[in-house]
Amino acid sequence: MATSRQFIYIKVPDGMPDVGCFRLVEAPMPKPTDGQVLARTRFLSIDPYMRRQMGGGHGQYSNPLKVGDVMIGRGAGVVIETRHPGFQVGDAVQGEFGWREHVVLGGKGLRKLPPDLRPLSLSLGLIGQSGATAMVGLVDIAGIKAGETVAVSAAAGAVGSAVGQIAKIMGCRAIGIAGGPEKCRHVVADLGFDDCIDYKVGAIGPALADAAPQGVDIYFDNVGGDILDAVMLHLNANARVPICGQISQYNSHVRQGLRNIGVILDKCVRLQGFRIGNHLARRDQALGELMDWHRAGRLKYRETVAEGLERAPSPVPSRLASGRYLLCQWSELYW
Amino acid sequence: MATSRQFIYIKVPDGMPDVGCFRLVEAPMPKPTDGQVLARTRFLSIDPYMRRQMGGGHGQYSNPLKVGDVMIGRGAGVVIETRHPGFQVGDAVQGEFGWREHVVLGGKGLRKLPPDLRPLSLSLGLIGQSGATAMVGLVDIAGIKAGETVAVSAAAGAVGSAVGQIAKIMGCRAIGIAGGPEKCRHVVADLGFDDCIDYKVGAIGPALADAAPQGVDIYFDNVGGDILDAVMLHLNANARVPICGQISQYNSHVRQGLRNIGVILDKCVRLQGFRIGNHLARRDQALGELMDWHRAGRLKYRETVAEGLERAPSPVPSRLASGRYLLCQWSELYW
Repeated sequence: MATSRQFIYIKVPDGMPDVGCFRLVEAPMPKPTDGQVLARTRFLSIDPYMRRQMGGGHGQYSNPLKVGDVMIGRGAGVVIETRHPGFQVGDAVQGEFGWREHVVLGGKGLRKLPPDLRPLSLSLGLIGQSGATAMVGLVDIAGIKAGETVAVSAAAGAVGSAVGQIAKIMGCRAIGIAGGPEKCRHVVADLGFDDCIDYKVGAIGPALADAAPQGVDIYFDNVGGDILDAVMLHLNANARVPICGQISQYNSHVRQGLRNIGVILDKCVRLQGFRIGNHLARRDQALGELMDWHRAGRLKYRETVAEGLERAPSPVPSRLASGRYLLCQWSELYW
Repeated sequence: MATSRQFIYIKVPDGMPDVGCFRLVEAPMPKPTDGQVLARTRFLSIDPYMRRQMGGGHGQYSNPLKVGDVMIGRGAGVVIETRHPGFQVGDAVQGEFGWREHVVLGGKGLRKLPPDLRPLSLSLGLIGQSGATAMVGLVDIAGIKAGETVAVSAAAGAVGSAVGQIAKIMGCRAIGIAGGPEKCRHVVADLGFDDCIDYKVGAIGPALADAAPQGVDIYFDNVGGDILDAVMLHLNANARVPICGQISQYNSHVRQGLRNIGVILDKCVRLQGFRIGNHLARRDQALGELMDWHRAGRLKYRETVAEGLERAPSPVPSRLASGRYLLCQWSELYW
């Protein structure tokens, strides 16, 4: 009987996840039924949101992952068998693959990718969930206007790097916040942000005052915690703060509140949590626009790819050691 | 020479304001110039926002009151001399009177009141800034929809009592939060809220779970602090939190953060600070709608009136003693 390998989620992490949270198993090869396709996985992506769904930390989705489930993860691949009239063998597709070599997909979770989308991995990043999250956060949640100043944390990350590039295309000043000189160099020199603040060097307040002398109109928050509190003090009247992630809190048992909440009233500020999954129609529009910009060569990207399904859990401990797992650069698995 | 009495703001309060913060003086009778009117004050209102502008505490407007200024305060009165073509002697007007017996007004700060608005004091409350604040907060900031559950703190106060009544008219469930059994009785029995939680009895979480078994869609926040944190845990997905006041914090030197900020992302919640002064066109529409409801007998109100300008500062210490000054019921001065 044909089989396919997959990772099962077997243990709730205590703080940082490690390889012991997952087990690689052989499962029977899945079979598509009417309206479904069988796809071979080409890329999976490892993203901070997964940590939230694993539980045992702070801030969870309403649908947490359960021990015994196949590990979740967005993927891209190629159709190798089809019982769906809209898909042919060889079509590139994207969806909620999970950590497995083969997956049966159908319904709304199955999306066909443009044939000229190269590399295919972009469908998991800049021209996928991350890019669409950046676009919807800036346009729909924050109501971005040309001439504004946009700050974004985790600026070298998948969403953050898209936020700054979109802000620039839309005529705004883009200021990144990232950890370490290499990330900050990348954000400015490669991605084209106007400035980038290294939060590991010291308090970001004075650096932000220098980088945004007119104040911040939009703070796209991926991290929460101290950085959010620091940026609050530099917001302009009527500033918007789309809250996309709280990376700094996911592995923590201790809640950190928002100290500077008073700014919300003093400056008539709007804080809004959002998830791209609640904006699917707009997501698809955003992906079309991002693809147009990609075709025109207007978007830059950098990807970190590891080969082999068996290496899926390994970014976790390696990034744990560096303390950067959940502030990580876009990361993918190829095999 | 004709004179008129007024109160000068002479001392920044340390914590609660007291009578020593103000001095009653005689000043020359003001004279209107072209485009202005001279009005005799009939009502002034004492509101929590004044505490913020006095400084020395936490959370200030960008235009704080300065020692030596005439004490601020919205008022209503009658035109006794006019050099404005749109106003006649005897017209009822509303504006930023300050604590004085006579005031010269003109320009945008001068508004003519409907001749059938009785009592005139309503122009300072339910059919004035407070009612308009409630309406704009619910409609424009929160996007209220029929069938939702609306909770509001300081529910017996000027803004809060309007919030619940408007929510009911708009087909929503209205839950008040107020301090003490008499206020809670008033909120339910007189104002028609569905329920009211006495925050002085104990933790409000369990009571809120009973009062809002479907969860809270809109929390209209007037107080901040512990109550905001408690309500955060009962918000539904996509809930909106218009932040109109942070009364619990104004007299405090110690900042209290928002502990449950994680809910913003987990539930895709929107927190938005706002001030009616930034929504003047909508304010005027709201006042028209409120006046229509008032003519139809659909709005209830209760006013606390003290007579005599010299008593203007006295609500401060008396309410200080009861600990209720800044959670106060609508309060006015008549003379």
